[in-house]
Amino acid sequence: MDELESGVVHGEPKDMKPAIGVDVGATLAKLAIRDEAGALHFESLPAREIDRVGDRVADFNPTRVGLTGGGASSLSERFAGISALQNEFESWGKGARHLLDAESLLKESRNLLVSLGTGTSVLLMDGDATHRVGGTALGGGTVLGLSSALLGTTDFDEICALAARGDRTEVDLVVEDVYPAGENPLAGKATASAFAKLGSGIAGPGGKDPENLAAAIVGLVAENVGLICGGLSYASQVQEIVFAGSTLRDNPLVRNILSLVTTAMGRTPVFLPHAEFGGALGAVLMSDSNH
Amino acid sequence: MDELESGVVHGEPKDMKPAIGVDVGATLAKLAIRDEAGALHFESLPAREIDRVGDRVADFNPTRVGLTGGGASSLSERFAGISALQNEFESWGKGARHLLDAESLLKESRNLLVSLGTGTSVLLMDGDATHRVGGTALGGGTVLGLSSALLGTTDFDEICALAARGDRTEVDLVVEDVYPAGENPLAGKATASAFAKLGSGIAGPGGKDPENLAAAIVGLVAENVGLICGGLSYASQVQEIVFAGSTLRDNPLVRNILSLVTTAMGRTPVFLPHAEFGGALGAVLMSDSNH
Repeated sequence: MDELESGVVHGEPKDMKPAIGVDVGATLAKLAIRDEAGALHFESLPAREIDRVGDRVADFNPTRVGLTGGGASSLSERFAGISALQNEFESWGKGARHLLDAESLLKESRNLLVSLGTGTSVLLMDGDATHRVGGTALGGGTVLGLSSALLGTTDFDEICALAARGDRTEVDLVVEDVYPAGENPLAGKATASAFAKLGSGIAGPGGKDPENLAAAIVGLVAENVGLICGGLSYASQVQEIVFAGSTLRDNPLVRNILSLVTTAMGRTPVFLPHAEFGGALGAVLMSDSNH
Repeated sequence: MDELESGVVHGEPKDMKPAIGVDVGATLAKLAIRDEAGALHFESLPAREIDRVGDRVADFNPTRVGLTGGGASSLSERFAGISALQNEFESWGKGARHLLDAESLLKESRNLLVSLGTGTSVLLMDGDATHRVGGTALGGGTVLGLSSALLGTTDFDEICALAARGDRTEVDLVVEDVYPAGENPLAGKATASAFAKLGSGIAGPGGKDPENLAAAIVGLVAENVGLICGGLSYASQVQEIVFAGSTLRDNPLVRNILSLVTTAMGRTPVFLPHAEFGGALGAVLMSDSNH
């Protein structure tokens, strides 16, 4: 689950010593490390190994540490004097805006920002301001929890690899299972009821295949996150929906479903570069400006 | 799963022979039977026993049969001459409006109507017109499918009874598991990630209890249906959300969650009397007016 990505920071380097942002979520602690040359490096570690996270931060002997996320306060004592707790939603907004602007990925200044981690928060980025407009408890934690119970694994990469090879329609009821062709305006392969073939006695032997179950689990989460975000985009009257968070990582299936659902709802999906590190990067940037 | 409810029809009886509406869904066939005296009776039978459904209709020697739902066309030959296939969404709108008007349950003429059956359709009732504005594959079929896989039962009444005794927070991650008290504006008991405790190693022994798993399954479905309907109510600019469909039957837990979520989103939940029979009743009424 460890990760090291690198990138060049945009803007002037402000320090000769590293500054670090740490976003401690329910599953992963994400680190955005800005080195002496101003380059950014990203890492993640298991959130439950909080001492190891602290050790990793200390390795860099940082000048400042921006902390955010539910588990961040436990680090504030260790880095007293150089650390500050930052608002999680503001951090996400700041970090995401920075990454999106660097690649000119947005057309509008008002957009939804969806942080798809263990659970999902839906934020409205309105220029420089960010606030929460909704969310759902569907997220990567749901994928891991259902996979643990149904597949006996909590290895996220393995689950995604299984899902990519699987066929949801062995597990889910689709429209053409219910409606004779042409009698319903919905697409025949559109999901009619998630997991319904397992309870109806009409699932074939494929309904117990791990890859098909994995595809149905990932499909249930991605499809409904997409629908909830689509609804909130209407409510907030925004066109662009930026998807971010660790659940997107190496996960073309989730991205594809989010794209299909939101495009079908007339919206423009955008995927955040360095998807899971928006909050950590924002925590660094906010520590800069608060300094 | 059989059911017999009765009620007095509102309006003039038009026939001395019964007229029947049949709404054949993915799981249940719902019958709305109007007898010689003009009284309404409601019954449901398993949709897969379609010959038995046809026999039940024939028992009443009806003058007219209004058919709707995905599996209804298979009955049209048997009742050729006296039957007509009716649009499912229009049938739901007509039937629901009739039942709601009889008890003066609505304040506005534009409302959402949510048919929570095997899957979920979200309809906009705009005066006499009804059209589909969204939906989700979360529904009763998801409850049965996940319960089959996790609990080994597909007895809906048993699942609901288990769920009513269960504690979701043994299975789901809640906000206070992630955020220290006072650090997050969301309620401490709000679900942060459905099923996440099962995959994170922090579930206690209660995470495997059938009643807690049942509560988490029902909670996942009801909570996200509520969120999707809330979003669509903003999009459609309606205040009242009418919940209907067989998944609501004898199911105070589902009703309670739908109420809590939509009320928190500033909306007014309304529960349709004779919840699952809106489509079947509408099919009778449409057969009247088309006659």
